[in-house]
Amino acid sequence: MTITNRTIKLNCDMGESFGAWTMGADEQVMPYVDMANIACGFHASDPHIMSKTIDLAIQNDVMIGAHPGYPDLQGFGRRSLHFSDEEICELMIYQIGALKALCESKNAELSYVKPHGALYNDMMRNKAIFRAIVDAVSCFNVPLMMLASSNNQDYLDIADRFDVPLLFEAFADRTYLANGQLTPRAMPNSVLTSEEAILNQVQQIARYGKVTSADGFIIPIEADTLCVHGDNPHAILLIEKIRHRLLS
Amino acid sequence: MTITNRTIKLNCDMGESFGAWTMGADEQVMPYVDMANIACGFHASDPHIMSKTIDLAIQNDVMIGAHPGYPDLQGFGRRSLHFSDEEICELMIYQIGALKALCESKNAELSYVKPHGALYNDMMRNKAIFRAIVDAVSCFNVPLMMLASSNNQDYLDIADRFDVPLLFEAFADRTYLANGQLTPRAMPNSVLTSEEAILNQVQQIARYGKVTSADGFIIPIEADTLCVHGDNPHAILLIEKIRHRLLS
Amino acid sequence: MTITNRTIKLNCDMGESFGAWTMGADEQVMPYVDMANIACGFHASDPHIMSKTIDLAIQNDVMIGAHPGYPDLQGFGRRSLHFSDEEICELMIYQIGALKALCESKNAELSYVKPHGALYNDMMRNKAIFRAIVDAVSCFNVPLMMLASSNNQDYLDIADRFDVPLLFEAFADRTYLANGQLTPRAMPNSVLTSEEAILNQVQQIARYGKVTSADGFIIPIEADTLCVHGDNPHAILLIEKIRHRLLS
Amino acid sequence: MTITNRTIKLNCDMGESFGAWTMGADEQVMPYVDMANIACGFHASDPHIMSKTIDLAIQNDVMIGAHPGYPDLQGFGRRSLHFSDEEICELMIYQIGALKALCESKNAELSYVKPHGALYNDMMRNKAIFRAIVDAVSCFNVPLMMLASSNNQDYLDIADRFDVPLLFEAFADRTYLANGQLTPRAMPNSVLTSEEAILNQVQQIARYGKVTSADGFIIPIEADTLCVHGDNPHAILLIEKIRHRLLS
Repeated sequence: MTITNRTIKLNCDMGESFGAWTMGADEQVMPYVDMANIACGFHASDPHIMSKTIDLAIQNDVMIGAHPGYPDLQGFGRRSLHFSDEEICELMIYQIGALKALCESKNAELSYVKPHGALYNDMMRNKAIFRAIVDAVSCFNVPLMMLASSNNQDYLDIADRFDVPLLFEAFADRTYLANGQLTPRAMPNSVLTSEEAILNQVQQIARYGKVTSADGFIIPIEADTLCVHGDNPHAILLIEKIRHRLLS
Repeated sequence: MTITNRTIKLNCDMGESFGAWTMGADEQVMPYVDMANIACGFHASDPHIMSKTIDLAIQNDVMIGAHPGYPDLQGFGRRSLHFSDEEICELMIYQIGALKALCESKNAELSYVKPHGALYNDMMRNKAIFRAIVDAVSCFNVPLMMLASSNNQDYLDIADRFDVPLLFEAFADRTYLANGQLTPRAMPNSVLTSEEAILNQVQQIARYGKVTSADGFIIPIEADTLCVHGDNPHAILLIEKIRHRLLS
Repeated sequence: MTITNRTIKLNCDMGESFGAWTMGADEQVMPYVDMANIACGFHASDPHIMSKTIDLAIQNDVMIGAHPGYPDLQGFGRRSLHFSDEEICELMIYQIGALKALCESKNAELSYVKPHGALYNDMMRNKAIFRAIVDAVSCFNVPLMMLASSNNQDYLDIADRFDVPLLFEAFADRTYLANGQLTPRAMPNSVLTSEEAILNQVQQIARYGKVTSADGFIIPIEADTLCVHGDNPHAILLIEKIRHRLLS
Repeated sequence: MTITNRTIKLNCDMGESFGAWTMGADEQVMPYVDMANIACGFHASDPHIMSKTIDLAIQNDVMIGAHPGYPDLQGFGRRSLHFSDEEICELMIYQIGALKALCESKNAELSYVKPHGALYNDMMRNKAIFRAIVDAVSCFNVPLMMLASSNNQDYLDIADRFDVPLLFEAFADRTYLANGQLTPRAMPNSVLTSEEAILNQVQQIARYGKVTSADGFIIPIEADTLCVHGDNPHAILLIEKIRHRLLS
């Protein structure tokens, strides 16, 4: 695994279509990213779309990650759903196992896991859910991707107990507070809208492991990967520019 | 794997509950069977029920098989659904992979695959679907279970090409035609109702590899396993008796 | 409508089967209740089961109520799901409209609405959700059933604005606090287990409009109906006895 | 109802999005059509999307039709699913009732019913299914829309028995055989690709009640409405042109 490589990776949600409905422009985005977070059929996708998305990742030499979510197609996995910790572990294993089997049927490798939407958010704010997810991921010998913040130690401790490596991701277009957390979306300035500001933040994170908080402090942020979005033509263009800036 | 053992195995559909709904008396049946066909979440079951059913199989030292079906909870997988051969292969891999991962998380082994309901029937009457299913099963290095009949050669040829072993099953309570096919359900006498007749047929198949057809011919039937049902108290009692007869 | 009749009605959840899965013993329970809360396909049931349950209610001269829930078959509508108030109104209208049309196709009448599970609980603790539900019910010119408590005035005010009558229900087997609320399930003594205690509480509510709280206070409780359960043989026997006690 | 008006109406499938997935450009198409076939949540749509689509139809003074389908989101209702005739009647009533209630909550009217996809095709080739659908529609006092062909008498006879008016639709872009049937899609020339040919066929159907078959015969075709599609920018442009040609 080349994840510890100096170069920061771009990760993007992929395979989020469902049946006759299309979401995202996977074919256009895939050439510009390094890691494809592939939906596993609970919040989006189905076995055929998963299979086609794996094919696309293979063709573009992109790492494949499982992107499991809550079983809620209508809500696209964006709503929290109550499950016991044991059940969260089980629904993670189910989805990761399904994607992994499809990968192996094509001689491709499952390289990491990143939970989706509300499941990701619940993992970040509830240590019991985080532990259940780490437990599930430990069955697959791959790293778990989560949000980089100022204090990753608690997460690292739990993950260590299950021998699960962590991958930390930062956001290209979200601003940060002085304490290293993301500025909550409800606050003004939570999102960077200027393309130049985004590209500068990307460069600062990738090259120096730092980010300038919304109120002007330079804070450290250790990120293995940057999350980008490919759901509209403007976003795809931006990914291209981010990619170019990272290479320059 | 002890499948080639002389003793015929009893296989039974298991884990067919869903959410708050219970189906089958798995705890009472499991002690009397050798192979548990565990539903994989498409026609019945969910990750939690799959997990509990695997636990139950482990406790009773019962072999675990994946029992994938069409994605149709409301129809319980009993209705045929049009999919391309490629899609059938994909939905098989998805479901088998999910169950296998849950097994491995408990250090249990996935031992075979038996399609469910309409998917099973479609596999038996459509060679392209059979081939798609064999293709899917070939990714898991386990045998595929199918209906024993007088002419298994075509199926064996296809399975051989994918290096997939076949397990043939017979029915304890269905009658056979002179050509080795099951008597269609629409015909009178398609089902054995007398307990003694069932037990005799079980013994004849298990001990002599033969069955007496509804019109009185003794025909050969090579069966590795007998399919039994555990969906009502009477059925469970019958499984006990079948088990006892097989041991005597 | 005979709801204002002195006699307290028994209401019971019905039609909670789904596809091949059976829940409840509707045929045995129906003769002993006055109001059937029929699931509408989102948390349980499907059009065929709804139709059969309506038939059963008609045969037993039982009032038919819509029992809409969150769209969550796997969780049986017992988990809260985030929806905007507008969406809650829409999902209520959808389900009630579907059941009402099935009723009218049989010349039966839809007589009331009672939300199910988490939707019922959310309605009782969130006035905005209550208002959205009242808004939906106002389209159908039927009353809304909700939990009787010591202070119903806020609810009555909202319902009045939409011209929706309210039906209050009490529980036969739950204990009450001195303030008229149900004893939370997490506390000891939240549930009455002695049959005689249940029958006494039923009689006290029905005849005197009062209940003795768990700590010994006699408090007023205005209830139009008592909620009973029919999900096991013991429960069905109890309904019979409650019915008999109410008539004595 | 102005359906018997001389002017042929344009009908178009609408409200086919689902949760976070968008399908069709309803806002752009609505101004150019007369009748909106609104999906009812079984093959596409959900209560919120149905509600928004009804709003859009009201704003554009477009007639609202229920567009019920088989319960198969993943297959978008394009696959046949086995149901008994009774069940088909029930799933129709359920969906139509749900849409009608949403219409009435906005003081809008449900004006007709047109089954979707495989349900539409099954209705056209199986008289028992047609009868079950007519039976369902008869509960709503609205017409049923179906395919115009050379011999509509059998359908008219059945519909008459249930007192259900029929609306016949023709296709702008499909060719016809000399017997008045659509040229099967498997055959060459089944679809008109030239814009001028489409516009001429539209005019011929609308003004003269005739169509020129693929092999050159001029045959009568009685159509109340023309089915158009709005799923891509080219299609929307074509609708505009059809509309303009009809008015000229």
